[in-house]
Formats: sequence, structure tokens, C-alpha cells
Amino acid sequence: MTSPISPATPASPVRSLEWLDTGLRLLDQTALPQRVVYLDITDVDALIDAIRRLAVRGAPALGAAGAYGVAVAMRQGERQGWDAGRLDAEITRVRDARPTAVNLAGGVDRVAPLIPAGLDAVLAEAHAVVREDIEANHAIGRNGADWILSRVERRPLRVLTHCNTGSLATAGWGTALGIIRELHARGLVEVVYVDETRPLLQGSRLTAWELDQEGIPHLVQPDSAAASTILRGLVDVAVIGADRIALNGDTANKIGSVGVALACADAGIPFVVAAPRTTFDDHTPTGATITIEERPESEVLEWAGTRVAPTASRAFNPAFDVTPARLISAIVDETGVRDTF
Amino acid sequence: MTSPISPATPASPVRSLEWLDTGLRLLDQTALPQRVVYLDITDVDALIDAIRRLAVRGAPALGAAGAYGVAVAMRQGERQGWDAGRLDAEITRVRDARPTAVNLAGGVDRVAPLIPAGLDAVLAEAHAVVREDIEANHAIGRNGADWILSRVERRPLRVLTHCNTGSLATAGWGTALGIIRELHARGLVEVVYVDETRPLLQGSRLTAWELDQEGIPHLVQPDSAAASTILRGLVDVAVIGADRIALNGDTANKIGSVGVALACADAGIPFVVAAPRTTFDDHTPTGATITIEERPESEVLEWAGTRVAPTASRAFNPAFDVTPARLISAIVDETGVRDTF
Repeated sequence: MTSPISPATPASPVRSLEWLDTGLRLLDQTALPQRVVYLDITDVDALIDAIRRLAVRGAPALGAAGAYGVAVAMRQGERQGWDAGRLDAEITRVRDARPTAVNLAGGVDRVAPLIPAGLDAVLAEAHAVVREDIEANHAIGRNGADWILSRVERRPLRVLTHCNTGSLATAGWGTALGIIRELHARGLVEVVYVDETRPLLQGSRLTAWELDQEGIPHLVQPDSAAASTILRGLVDVAVIGADRIALNGDTANKIGSVGVALACADAGIPFVVAAPRTTFDDHTPTGATITIEERPESEVLEWAGTRVAPTASRAFNPAFDVTPARLISAIVDETGVRDTF
Repeated sequence: MTSPISPATPASPVRSLEWLDTGLRLLDQTALPQRVVYLDITDVDALIDAIRRLAVRGAPALGAAGAYGVAVAMRQGERQGWDAGRLDAEITRVRDARPTAVNLAGGVDRVAPLIPAGLDAVLAEAHAVVREDIEANHAIGRNGADWILSRVERRPLRVLTHCNTGSLATAGWGTALGIIRELHARGLVEVVYVDETRPLLQGSRLTAWELDQEGIPHLVQPDSAAASTILRGLVDVAVIGADRIALNGDTANKIGSVGVALACADAGIPFVVAAPRTTFDDHTPTGATITIEERPESEVLEWAGTRVAPTASRAFNPAFDVTPARLISAIVDETGVRDTF
């Protein structure tokens, strides 16, 4: 069986994932920045493993991975002779591999109705998810840059960001990092303060890597430095992504985001959340109803397999936090900016 | 020449430093919790190296190290035939080895006037610094526990702390951790949330080690989780130490402290600073005049000698931040509690 290959992605600096005839190719983000390793995913277990250990991560990228995951399951089912019930169960496992990001389930749910129409129809819709995400990212970049430039006087800008919201976190370009790319393209970025983003260091490993590749000046800092960097007047605006946005404007973001928001509110600088429309969840009235994923204790207690804390110590490792709408200056999506909640 | 040995230290769970006939013995805190290694310090360069790389750290412990450092310099000067000017210059180097903690300079300045009276007089005064610090710690523990129990209703308590302020950070017992020990001795601690305290992990390596040794229940968490742990209602009180306290009540603490303070203020729970009187600096009118030490970028960009971030990336690594007095609920010292600023 032949399948359409991935759509062209103009101005996409790096591809977090790509559909090839052999299956879904993922850039293994756990190996960056030391090594560029690709994973060729041909079965559901491998995909779920890649999602769980964050080889692919970032809300919009998970949306694309979910969409292609349906195709992966269909192919595996064809090889292994699954009935419809088994296929449905396997797709549900992909859908639920991580609980907080709404986009993963959204990607699955968008393409799954096309299963009766066949693999090519599913793949065409998955490619549309990718294409639309990249287009949305570029629109977010423009909308966010325009909004920030209308609210912040200083030129060039000193921007703070947390976690990774760039090409690696999306189908291409980036959400919060897409805004930073857009500001840089306009020659208006002095420096980006990059929170290292413990425990998995998406900031120092991934965001710094993306910024380095484009020559955007940046300083990696411990997450704990963010509040004082902001209070000391070294930052003009903070921009971050979102994994789920509730109806009331509360957002679930990478753990540490609400601390940045508190500091921005205290310092009187804008705290900007950037995410595609697919991140808005009509089924979530407020942040209080968002399930917060708790990840393995070993991520905090060990480093590269070596224990850091005492053997008997336990860890608390929530992957996300909820930033209440009252602390958010603006939510930027591809259609515009919501700046009143 | 014989010298008095260190004073007895009742109820001191571990010794960060100790004077022996051979010189100053430091517990090398960079090797914990994996290994218990002692450093025998007999010259000024070795002492400064130990201070700079945080083999000995914590404001009160640095006060004792400064006091004993004068004795180390006197012995080295005697061996090497230094004149008074050289001795003075070497002692000044010890005094200035780290800029933010006022206690280091305080320890040096307290014993240095006794140099003309000889080594035994200097050592006797240094031992007094140690003895008084331990006594002060115990008083801080009692004062802090009493204050917290008068302001927080829940029993048992869920406490959050940042960095290490225990026996390792002092001559013995601890400041903020001394309050936690005291609360635990009264049977009133449910759990201690321990911020891991990047980049050098004093929380997961040292505080968790001290708590583990005494069987105090604790959970290590990424620093970035502190704000949401507090906002989620999982914490009743936060207690931290201080490296310098200005006349207006602003305090310099380990980087990340002001983020904890912002979250406590937002959640309406007490943010308690614990420090001996020696931490109050009459020469510092406000936090704005405190020099913030910036430490090597490699602490952030590398892990155990392995590069984490891209080779070209730079880091911002301030070791401390300033918490404004308006965010501090109480400052506890050995004489009582200041809870209005």
C-alpha cells in the first residue's frame, strides 16, 4: 500500500515528526542536543512509549502524533488481523497516553471517524492537522508579536520563556517560541531568558538548541531564577505555551508556569500564553477540573540513571500546573488575542 | 602548639565543620549524599576553594568557617613566616570568598581583633561562634515553631522549604530546618516539601539527607513545582533561611526564595524567614544594595561534567535573590519573631 507523504512545510526549522512510507518518523527529543536520533514508529506500543518518555512532546506535536497514531494502529491491525474492537481499543490507548494535553486526544478524535474511509483518508486528514498547525503557528507568531509590540515600549525586547514551545513542540515553527521567532525576524529580540525546565530540561536541551540554530541570543537559567530575573527588571515580557485552556481562561502549562505568571503580575509585565485553537477545551469549565499528570519520581531523584537524592527519599513530580486566568495578560491563538478575562 | 578542640555540641545531628589539632575539618557537602568525605584544611587557598565550590556553605556555617579561617591563616603564616601585612591580606581573601552571605565576613571580623592575643585566643573565640550559633539555632527552632503553631491551624503541618538550612548549613541543628526539626520533635510534621534547589541540588542532596537521617517524611520536588504545590493548597507554611537581612527587612536568600514568597502571598499562607542575629546587616539599608553573587555558568549548563545545553549557549546563574519585606510574614531569630515590616 502506498501512502501520501507529509506535506511540504515552508520555513519549518526542524521537524518533530514526519510520515514516511515506512511509518511515523519521530525526532527523539530525549537525545537532543547531543545527538539527532530518529525513531521509526510502526506499532502502537512503540508510539505510546515514545509519547510517555517524551521522545515526542509539546501539545501541538502530540496532536499530530495522535492523528498519525491512528494510521500506525490501522497498519499494525492490518498486519496482525485486528478486528474493529481491537483497533478501537488500541487507538484509545494512544489517545490516553498522556492525560493533560488536550491536543493528543484531539488529534486522535479528528481522524478516527475517517477509519471506515481507509488509510489514505486518515493520512490525508493527519497531514491536514500538521499543515494547519504550522499555519496556525505562523499566525500565532504574528498575532503575538503585534500584541506585545503594542503593549511593551522597550526595544529591543528581553523575553522570558519556559519549557519548549518551538518547532519541536509543534508540527513546525512554534507557539510561544513562534512569537519569539517572529520578533527576532523583525530584529527586535535582545535576549531570551530560557528557563532550563526541570526535571527534563526541555529549556536547556530543546529551546536553547532551537534558539542556537537560529542565532537568537539567549541565556539559560535555573527555573528558580525566573521570578527574581523578572522582579529585577531584566525582562519585558514572558511568553509560554499551553497544554489545555479552560473555558474561563485558566491554562494548564508546564510545571513552573504559574510561578512565572505570579512574578509577572508582581512586576507589572505581560504574561502571554500562546496556543492554537485546538488547545481550548470546551469540556473543561475551569482549571480546577484539569487532570494534572504526575510523572515518575526517578525524573527528579536521579540523573542519567545515577541517584541524586538519598535512596529512601520520595519525590513529587507534577508535570503541569494551572495558571489562573487572573494572572494571564493575553492568550494568543491563530485567530487573534484574548486579553480580557 | 596545642589548641583547644571544638566545643561539645549537644543534639547536633551532623557536624559541617570542626576544629582538630590538625586544622579545620570540613564535611565536603559536594559529595553528599553518596559519600561522607572530610577535608582537612591547613592553608588559606584550600579554605577559599572549599568555600567557593560550596564544600562548606550555608550562611551560619560560613560564619564559623570565617572565624576558623583566621586561625588557619595564622598557622600557615607561622609556618611560612608571613609578616602582619601578608597575614592581613590572606585573611581578607577569606573574608571576601563569597560576597552575599554577611556571616562569612562577620565570622572573620569577630575573631580577627584577637590575633595579637595569639592563636589560642582566636580559637577560643571561634569556638564561641560555633557554640553561640548552635544555641541560637535551637532558640530559632523554638521561636519559629511557636509562632507557626499560633498562626496555622492545621495539624499535623505540611511544610515547604528551599535549599538547605540544616546542620550542614550551620554549626549544627539548623535555622529553617531547625524549626522543622522542632516541629517534628513535637510530633507535628506531616510532610516536608523539599525544593531540589537547582543548580547544585542542596535540597535533594542535603536537606533530604538530613530529613532522611531523622526519619522526617519528605517529598523532593522540582523548584518549579513550589508555586503550584502552594497554590493547590498542599502546603501550610513555607520556611527558609537567609544569607543577609537588610535594615528594612528585605532578605537575600538562595535563588528561588522570592518565587516561593510570591506564591505564599497569593495563597495566603505564611512565608517565614529564619536566621540568627548575625545575618542582620546594619550596613545594608534595603535589598537593592545587596550584591548578588553570580556563579559559574557551567553549574547550569553541565551535569557532572557532561554538557546539557548546546555548546554555544550561555547561562545566567545568580546564586541568590532578594525577597522584599512586604512578602515576608515573619523573620525568626534567636531573640524572637519580627512579624511586622
